[in-house]
Amino acid sequence: MADKKLVESITSMEEDFAQWYTDVVKKAELIDYTSVKGCMVIKPAGYAIWENIQKNLDAMFKEVGVQNVYLPMFIPESLLQKEKDHVEGFAPEVAWVTHGGLAPLQERLCVRPTSETLFCDFYKNDIHSYRDLPRVYNQWCSVVRWEKETRPFLRSREFLWQEGHTAHATAEEAEERTIQMLNVYAKFCEDFLAIPVIKGRKTDKEKFAGAEATYTIEALMHDGKALQSGTSHNFGDGFAKAFGIQYADKDNTLKYVHQTSWGMTTRLIGAVIMVHGDDSGLVLPPRIAPTQVMIIPIQQRKEGVLDKAYELADSLKGSYSVKVDDSDKTPGWKFSEQEMRGIPIRVEIGPKDIEAGKCIICRRDTREKIEVALSELNQKVGEVLDTMQKEMLERARAHRDSHTYVAKNMEELKSIFAEKTGFVKAMWCGCQECEDIIKEKLSVTSRCMPFEQEQLSDTCVCCGKPAKKMVYWGKAY
Amino acid sequence: MADKKLVESITSMEEDFAQWYTDVVKKAELIDYTSVKGCMVIKPAGYAIWENIQKNLDAMFKEVGVQNVYLPMFIPESLLQKEKDHVEGFAPEVAWVTHGGLAPLQERLCVRPTSETLFCDFYKNDIHSYRDLPRVYNQWCSVVRWEKETRPFLRSREFLWQEGHTAHATAEEAEERTIQMLNVYAKFCEDFLAIPVIKGRKTDKEKFAGAEATYTIEALMHDGKALQSGTSHNFGDGFAKAFGIQYADKDNTLKYVHQTSWGMTTRLIGAVIMVHGDDSGLVLPPRIAPTQVMIIPIQQRKEGVLDKAYELADSLKGSYSVKVDDSDKTPGWKFSEQEMRGIPIRVEIGPKDIEAGKCIICRRDTREKIEVALSELNQKVGEVLDTMQKEMLERARAHRDSHTYVAKNMEELKSIFAEKTGFVKAMWCGCQECEDIIKEKLSVTSRCMPFEQEQLSDTCVCCGKPAKKMVYWGKAY
Repeated sequence: MADKKLVESITSMEEDFAQWYTDVVKKAELIDYTSVKGCMVIKPAGYAIWENIQKNLDAMFKEVGVQNVYLPMFIPESLLQKEKDHVEGFAPEVAWVTHGGLAPLQERLCVRPTSETLFCDFYKNDIHSYRDLPRVYNQWCSVVRWEKETRPFLRSREFLWQEGHTAHATAEEAEERTIQMLNVYAKFCEDFLAIPVIKGRKTDKEKFAGAEATYTIEALMHDGKALQSGTSHNFGDGFAKAFGIQYADKDNTLKYVHQTSWGMTTRLIGAVIMVHGDDSGLVLPPRIAPTQVMIIPIQQRKEGVLDKAYELADSLKGSYSVKVDDSDKTPGWKFSEQEMRGIPIRVEIGPKDIEAGKCIICRRDTREKIEVALSELNQKVGEVLDTMQKEMLERARAHRDSHTYVAKNMEELKSIFAEKTGFVKAMWCGCQECEDIIKEKLSVTSRCMPFEQEQLSDTCVCCGKPAKKMVYWGKAY
Repeated sequence: MADKKLVESITSMEEDFAQWYTDVVKKAELIDYTSVKGCMVIKPAGYAIWENIQKNLDAMFKEVGVQNVYLPMFIPESLLQKEKDHVEGFAPEVAWVTHGGLAPLQERLCVRPTSETLFCDFYKNDIHSYRDLPRVYNQWCSVVRWEKETRPFLRSREFLWQEGHTAHATAEEAEERTIQMLNVYAKFCEDFLAIPVIKGRKTDKEKFAGAEATYTIEALMHDGKALQSGTSHNFGDGFAKAFGIQYADKDNTLKYVHQTSWGMTTRLIGAVIMVHGDDSGLVLPPRIAPTQVMIIPIQQRKEGVLDKAYELADSLKGSYSVKVDDSDKTPGWKFSEQEMRGIPIRVEIGPKDIEAGKCIICRRDTREKIEVALSELNQKVGEVLDTMQKEMLERARAHRDSHTYVAKNMEELKSIFAEKTGFVKAMWCGCQECEDIIKEKLSVTSRCMPFEQEQLSDTCVCCGKPAKKMVYWGKAY
């Protein structure tokens, strides 16, 4: 039934997943390229998804005591250099402002790639006593990293994100907050984006520049590649010592604060595309879909059809976000567009349906068609959206589980990655040497040491020495 | 009753308005200075006001068909230079990025001071046919202008704002949208910020770089100085011609689009402070106050007092944003803090009140104290908030009207500005020469040619030739 013109122009996922992805972001009108290499325009359909992510994630933040702030986008070079590991990690990929107006600056400023140093500089003057702790601040902003290879949403020179930065009296409290925010991220991904994630800790090799520990949520895309979807870092008192952030404790002694930071970005939109999309385009989880229901009138020029479509829209609007496609395109073309844009539910209503007091609901993910009495439409739409949200998560979980493998030695690890793409669980001795060897030989990276550990065998998959941790390996975006 | 320590540290408005303003932004914890000259930290109490501004203004935008997008923060130098007037206006005050990572860039990029050029570059490829019009896009972001003198919220090198950029098929439609958005701004200022504004058109001397016409809303601060609070620009087809933005019309001929842009910024927070504040600190209009009601328990260690305070908070939370100050400070100290932060309503509740089934409501603006039966608290809080919102607007309007003067000749104009600060209405011949003379001699600027014109006299206040327009003059921030 769907018109083929729109659909034909998308490459099939099986044929070329990367090209399919690029086609979808363009055809679903999420993004456009710009004259600024590596920077994107996020178009209305893409930005509306980000607004829904922001709104819901921000509400979850506020429930756990997070307050929003805004810090400058510029970091003086001397400030960036205060924490040794941090500057080594970021200096090679920042953009430098050297002139303000017509005059050269006395000191170069970098455009923030992340704001640990700015928050430290702020906290240094803002925190005096134990009464000022904890500080649990977050900002929504854009950051810049001068990447060489870029891809829409997944890796761009400028991207939108949130960055939380906290300061605590004790190491225990900082660790608790680090894990708490990782759990918020995991819950958000599962409940709103319908994306199941593996929670775990990064190896030292993969941790954030300047962190004591980095925790991550890792998701598996439809093509079997991993996507790091959110990270939460515990800095201990390393930054506090570098920046001199001290507080007077109850016993009147000066102590260093313990800090954390955590972030999620517009790359989540990339994850939604690559976990749920299909050969007809985007499939949006109902809870973050900007439009949840598209009503498409059939034979709309016949008397009463458009009126009925508007009437249905009005009756649904209190509960759902609804649009009527009353453009002069053919129904088939409208179906294709609704599918391409990933709108969860299509309601088809024509003269015969009206006569029979019915309409057709079509689910975007399964394409299941359901005949519904108009009097029951409101309730049925709610049920279908709930079911779809739930089943999208289940399907993504089943896909991930069926693409998760176990390797007990290098031979198995090699042969799995030679044939398949997915997560591979394997035991590890904890030496960076083994991690380096695996990365180099198989072009995969350690994704995380999951919180849910299993004892697959007693020996490291690489060196055969006693194993300490089970690690998830994968090819990553 | 209020503890004096907090209050004493604010300079009185009458003594030194500028210092009073600086004291309030610091003591009400809205802002902090940073290591980056001219850039500020917006702290939680300040950012929460901005979030309320964003939420409500964005809802008004969406009602008139505005869609949000995000464009890059960088503008290649060649792009900035495409529209002659525009580049002349902005080039002297932009920050230039010259290096990305370790390498110099082939072309310098400026950090956006405003995004007309980027939107044009985007629209050039995005608009093909009359079916693509109008485009009514907006973005919430930060922009950078390398100002020499800066003041919190009013003028800083980086500030937050929204910038709408639209493209239309006809000149009429562009003009309609320009005025429509100015009306949205005026309504927002009056309905939410309780700030009355003068709507009008800027003279050619004061208009935006590259615009055909700039419209403005001008507000009067408590000290009699004017604040430009929002602007809306009609570009005609000037940018379209410079960038080559054409569409195929129904008759199949290629035509240039007509464009507009419009913006409001975090300077609105400065306006709220300077219109409504008093010697005890901030006074926030209820509709944008992050906390509307602060419940302050009296003798809170007595049994039942804190429980009652929490119970009241719970009963109010469905309708208002409420907090209980259960810290171990004295009630007087808590009163001072609540006043300093401008929280509209204070509820005082102690053992005797509980016994009598009553509490005291205290209005922040008038300090009126009202005894209220606990059973009627919810309703009464609603009434007081509504009344306060309404009366704050009325008071601001009365203040503005009593500080608006009329001058019929240069002598009058001089003597008014020698003695008073406020708006002065005067007739003008329309020549920039007269405008320049007045600006130079009296150190005031033309604020706008108001939509509501009056015929004060027949001759220009400066040259005595026939007058064309009535102009508002003032000292401006």
